[in-house]
This record gives sequence, C-alpha cells and structure tokens, in this order.
Amino acid sequence: MEPLRVALLGCGVVGTEVARLLTTHADELAARVGVPLRLEGVAVRRPGRPRDLDIDQALFTSDAAGLVRRADVVVEVIGGIEPARGLILSAMEAGASVVTANKALLAEDGPTLYGAADKHGVDLYFEAAVAGAIPLLRPLRESLAGDRVRRVLGIVNGTTNYVLDKMHTTGAGFADAVAQAQALGYAEADPTADVEGFDAAAKAAILASLAFHTRVAAADVHREGITGVTAADVASAQAMGAVVKLLAICERSDDPDGVESVSVRVHPAMIPAAHPLAGVREAFNAVFVEAEAAGELMFYGRGAGGQPTASAVLGDVITVARHRVAGGRGPGESAYADLPVRPMGQVRTRYHISLDVADRPGVLAQVAQVFAAHQVSIETVRQQQLPHREEEPQAGPPRAALVVVTHTAPDAALAATVEALDSLDVVAAVASVMRVEGED
Amino acid sequence: MEPLRVALLGCGVVGTEVARLLTTHADELAARVGVPLRLEGVAVRRPGRPRDLDIDQALFTSDAAGLVRRADVVVEVIGGIEPARGLILSAMEAGASVVTANKALLAEDGPTLYGAADKHGVDLYFEAAVAGAIPLLRPLRESLAGDRVRRVLGIVNGTTNYVLDKMHTTGAGFADAVAQAQALGYAEADPTADVEGFDAAAKAAILASLAFHTRVAAADVHREGITGVTAADVASAQAMGAVVKLLAICERSDDPDGVESVSVRVHPAMIPAAHPLAGVREAFNAVFVEAEAAGELMFYGRGAGGQPTASAVLGDVITVARHRVAGGRGPGESAYADLPVRPMGQVRTRYHISLDVADRPGVLAQVAQVFAAHQVSIETVRQQQLPHREEEPQAGPPRAALVVVTHTAPDAALAATVEALDSLDVVAAVASVMRVEGED
Repeated sequence: MEPLRVALLGCGVVGTEVARLLTTHADELAARVGVPLRLEGVAVRRPGRPRDLDIDQALFTSDAAGLVRRADVVVEVIGGIEPARGLILSAMEAGASVVTANKALLAEDGPTLYGAADKHGVDLYFEAAVAGAIPLLRPLRESLAGDRVRRVLGIVNGTTNYVLDKMHTTGAGFADAVAQAQALGYAEADPTADVEGFDAAAKAAILASLAFHTRVAAADVHREGITGVTAADVASAQAMGAVVKLLAICERSDDPDGVESVSVRVHPAMIPAAHPLAGVREAFNAVFVEAEAAGELMFYGRGAGGQPTASAVLGDVITVARHRVAGGRGPGESAYADLPVRPMGQVRTRYHISLDVADRPGVLAQVAQVFAAHQVSIETVRQQQLPHREEEPQAGPPRAALVVVTHTAPDAALAATVEALDSLDVVAAVASVMRVEGED
Repeated sequence: MEPLRVALLGCGVVGTEVARLLTTHADELAARVGVPLRLEGVAVRRPGRPRDLDIDQALFTSDAAGLVRRADVVVEVIGGIEPARGLILSAMEAGASVVTANKALLAEDGPTLYGAADKHGVDLYFEAAVAGAIPLLRPLRESLAGDRVRRVLGIVNGTTNYVLDKMHTTGAGFADAVAQAQALGYAEADPTADVEGFDAAAKAAILASLAFHTRVAAADVHREGITGVTAADVASAQAMGAVVKLLAICERSDDPDGVESVSVRVHPAMIPAAHPLAGVREAFNAVFVEAEAAGELMFYGRGAGGQPTASAVLGDVITVARHRVAGGRGPGESAYADLPVRPMGQVRTRYHISLDVADRPGVLAQVAQVFAAHQVSIETVRQQQLPHREEEPQAGPPRAALVVVTHTAPDAALAATVEALDSLDVVAAVASVMRVEGED
C-alpha cells in the first residue's frame, strides 16, 4: 500500500520532536499503522534557517497552504488562532485528517473545526492540547463514554505549578518564584498567558466540553491567575495543612431549582495536603476526575515539553492513520447535553479568609454577624499570632489574625461577605482570601 | 436507525451494574452512540432466581449460545476460560463485536480471540480486564501508540494492596490482615487467586503484550504472591523509608549481547515512600508507565467493584457501538515486535536482605565475601538491634541484624547469594528477603 503523507505545520519545540520521532521510529510506526508514514513537508516561516533536526532540507517550505493539500494527515503545532485555523480548514476540505495541539483555537472555535471534520468525513484529534503527554482526552471521550462525569479538577499548567511549588518549598514570593521558573525555562519571558490563567482556562473549556457533552468556550470560563498569591497565602495554607494550586475546575451540579448546569473555572485554591493533587510537584500536571460509576480517577504526567507533547501528537497520528488504512472515524463533537454554564456568582465554593483585626472582646461577634447576614456558614475560626510587620512597628492598639474557613456558599455571597468585612471598623485589613477545594 | 442489540453474558456484581446502567442511562447512551442500545438478553445459569435488578424478567435466559447469535454487541462478564471462550468465539462468528472483562482468558488465549475478531471483522475490547475503572488499556493501545514504552509498574490487585496497606498501618501480620479484608468484602473466602498473584500475573501479561507489541501469556510471567510477607518485612521496609507493594512489572531491556527483550513479573517489592505508587492506599489500583518520549505517567483509580468495572465495560460498549454505526474497527492485536521474554534468573533486580548474624568481629567480612563471590555489589549495609524473639529467649551468644541492600544484579545471582548466606556459620537465619523497585 502507498505510504500515508504527513504534513507538519510548525517546527518549534514540539514540531521538531514530532519530525524526529516520525523519521527515527519510522519502522515501528509503519508496523503499528500497517503502512509507512512519510513526512511530506514541514511548513515554517523561514525554510532556510538552520535547525537541529536531521531531515532532508528540501522538506521545509513556507507554502503551508500548498502543503496541506498534498497530505493525508496534517499535524498543526503552530498554535494561536490564525493562520492555524485557516490551514486546518483547508486541510479538511482537501480530505486530510487533522491532529492539533492548539488549545487556544479549540477553546475559541472548536465547533467550527468539528463541523468541518464532519462535513468532510475526516478525523480531528487533539490529545496534546491538554496536559501534554498525559492520555486524558481519549479517556474522557471514549473510556468514560458510558459513565457520567461529575467533576474534573486539574493542574493543567506546568509553569504555575512550578511557581507555586517553589513558593511552598522555599518560601519565596511570587516574583522571585517566577524569576526562578524563567531561569530554568519553565516560564516564558512574558509569563502572562500562564500566570494569569489564560492557558489553563482554554484547557478547562476543552475538558468541560468533553466531560459534559456541552459546548464550553474559553470565554465561558471564570478565570483568576496566581499573580495575587502571596507568600502569606502560602504560609496560611501550610498552617492549615493545605497547599495552594492553580486549579481548572469543571463541575456538573443542580441549581436550587433542580436544573442541571455546569460550572467551569480556573483560580488558585487551597487543597488538603492529603489530596492526590497536592503531591503534584514541579512542572508536572495531573487531572482528577470523579465519575458516577467509575469513582475517583487520576491521570498524572508531564504537561508540556517537546518530547512529551510529541508523544501525544504521534499517538493521535497513529490513530487517524489507522482510520485511513482500515476505515472508520474517531468520535466527533458530542454536545447533545447542552447544559447551561452557571455564572461564577452562583457557583458554590468555600473561602479561606484571613483577617487582621483589633484584639478586643466583641470582635468575633461582629465578624460572625457579617457572615450570618450574608447567609454564609462558618466551618472553623482560628485566632493566631499576627505576624510581625516591618513596615508598621507595633505602635497602635493590639491586633490579632482571625482565620475563617466557611462552608460552601454561593461565590457571590462569599465575595460580598469579604467586601463587608473589609469595611468593618474592627477589621484593619483582609489579609488573604482564597477558595478551598478538594473536600466534601 | 434500528437499535443495537446488546447481549450480556453473566449477571454477577459487574453484570448487574452493566444492565442497570444500560437501562437507566439509556437516553444518554443513545445520544452518545447515535442509536439506542437495546438489552437483548442476559445469560445466567438460573434465570428464575430473584435478583436486585429492575429489568424485564423475560430477558433472563439460560441459553447463552442462542443469545449471542441475536446480538450486535456481546458483553462477557462470566470470567474463567470456558464457557466464556466458546461463547465469545460463537458471538464473533455470528458477526457480533465483543467487550469482555476476562483477564484470565485474555492472558491464556488472547491471540485466539484477536484472530477470530480479525477473521470476522469485529471488535474486541477489554478495558475492564486490567485495573477496573482506570482507563489504561486504551491509553496503552492508542495514546502511546506513537511512543516506546520502557516500563510498566503497577498495583493491579486491590485485595493484596488492601492487605499490605493494613499490615503497614496497623502492624498486623498477613493472616490477620487477610481476615480483615475478608470481613470487609475486599478478599474472597478463598483468597488464593489474589494473594498468590495469579490475578496480577494475568493482568501483567495483558499489559506487557500491549506495551511491547509482543505476545506474553500468563505462563510467561514470573509470579510470587504475598503469603510470605511478614510483619517483620513490613517493619524492615518502614525502617528504610519504603513500603511493601505487590507489583506487576513489565520491562523492556537490552541483555548483555545488546539483544532487546522483555521481562514480566509479579512479586512483592519494597518501593521508596516518595514514589507515587507508595501512596496508593486501601484497595485502589495505580499503574506507572515510563515511555521514551512521554516520560513518566501514572493512572490511578478503583481497580474492582461492580460500578467501576461496569464503567469501563460501558465505555467499550459505546466505542464498539459507534463502530457499528459509523464504520471502522478498533486496533487489533499488535505483536509485530515479537521480543523474547527473558527468564527471571536473568532479570536485573535489587534485593533487600535482612540477616540474623552472630555479633562478633569478622562477620561482615564473611558476609561481604559471599556477595563478592556472586558478583553482587552492595549498596548499603546497616546493622540494627535484633528484635526480641519470644520463641527464643536470649540464651545463646549475642546476635545482631545485618540489613543489606544491593545494587542491581541478575536475579539468579541474588538468589544464589541468599542461599550461600543461609549456609554460612555466622548467619543464624536469613530473616527477610525482598526485591527493591522504583529507583534507578
């Protein structure tokens, strides 16, 4: 049989590894597919640029649009919205199946891609778009297809996990930890997409869409990054036997009227040290899934990097190549459930609130009254030594730290409680506010 | 379109949950497949027996052979070799796709089943056969199809993990821990298949076959159970910051001549407390996979139980049903690599050996000489207080405990070393011998 022609769009860190594995492991891949996979070309902006990749230089081309029309399988690892989207749509129109690692595009315009794949009868696979090498999307789309997913709780951004892990292990502040991550190549020179949670939000949208058979776009995801996480927050978490993680949280729940809905959010949260996600160190990723019949599952591994991401891309290439050889197509979009996405204010969460208060009788009563007025129930209150503040010598009246952990309540009620606490006379400052997850 | 007819063979703990989910989630499953799934019948030995399952009693039949010829998808959850094998082969001959949870049959005669599936152009899926609800086989067969798996290290038997976990947390001996597991329903009245490692060995054979594209049968697996693990072994492990787990280990390696081979084995081993598998508690399962490009991956969840296993079965049912609707077939057998299975004696392992020795000068030199004579290199030696033995009052000469951890060496050399140590005059007893894994 004729070899299958594979076109590679993009030759950065991931593309280089994909090309390398396609060529060095050619025999094994051919044995697994049934026919050889032939690298038809690599579309790059500057074909003449020297690269650390031992393939025929004539394969490099700047004519991506022409390349996709000569391929059976197109691998898109350019990233971003355009020209990636246009090229993927052209490829599908020309009859090619597509493997992409493009989380931003999938989270912004996934239905368009699925629609084109259906129209042209081709495959769309994107395992590498979320959590790099970890087989996660195929399990959600296929292994759990007979189950009902209740919740997905994931560490899906390696950069922020590295930064938070360093803050925990070294006591460093946010800026220092980011600088360390940059020095080691775990963070970009401009770390905005990671630390502000944009990357995690795109992944959360993809996970929620698959888990709940419902269209969820990046714009539907409530997003808070980790730039506001302080060394004091981390210390506070440690004091209560918890760790701070940036979590992507996708939940299915009933609203008070019994109507099913989903919530999708990305924010830092404290999770108990005994939770399986708490032990995820450095730049690793892990995703915790709760399904009705399967119970608790966890998937752990490397979420980024050239080789791990290339492993996920090639797994998809093999799958779509087998479909070209033996017939069949992978699952298309599954959005039949069409559940509403609940606004963040209505999502039930728990808060950890640390207050800097006047140390005199009656303060706790006043604080408790604010919680009660917002119908927020308190789980624990802990009073602790106020840390010494260099900028503010101990001159004024005695103060204490009051740490409150709430039961679950609507996020809007919790936010309003914090605002009201901040305006109380006896509260000098709201020192730290963070959500608590991973229990119940 | 016509509904797809699903035949269920067996209605024990798993079958009952499969039938329940098929009927209670019928609408959702139909939306995911594209057509309804209709339960065509449930083959059981005694159709009239009262059951806790709210389905039409007329569906129960003792005519399994007739039932499989009226189905599009046959779900086999009887277990064991016959009649399961005969029914699966009849079903395929009649054109049905098969989903099975039957690890024993797959490990004994997988190639026959794959061959029949190929011959009749039907699917064979078996996610539930290993690690219950954990999506593991689909990731190995598909997600990692573009990568090269180096090693699989798994806790794949919940009963033995529960028993060992209890021995660790309560200090109980083996017999007491088994009794606890039996009282809680985690162990059968006859726990042989679990505690002797037969169950884990079947799963190891399946994992190795998929990971290495090589036929591995249960008979190729070196198997040691946990019946010989003592409270002293567990205490020894704890003393060195490790835990004892029953591991299924599948490794690809070069032998000294540079020929690639695989080794597949099930035995208790000490792993460092910091290893991700060490934290797997109670009856949970987890599988650690090391692949060349993907790096380290871990999959964690419930390895048994009606609902978790039914979740895995139904995921497979959805996949094969989609193939019936949209065309295509899942991957067949992949055994092209055909690597030799290395005998256990040639596998490189590490030993933890605890000796009860005479407490006088020159003993260590004699012991070290035995290791050297077998070309086994010692990593650490630790001398420790000999635990008080009730059956043997301190009357004889003073004795000490010598704990030796080796570097890796061929298993046969390590076993011969232990034998030689046992016959040394200065060695009163070899108190504990266990392999050490999870480092390097």
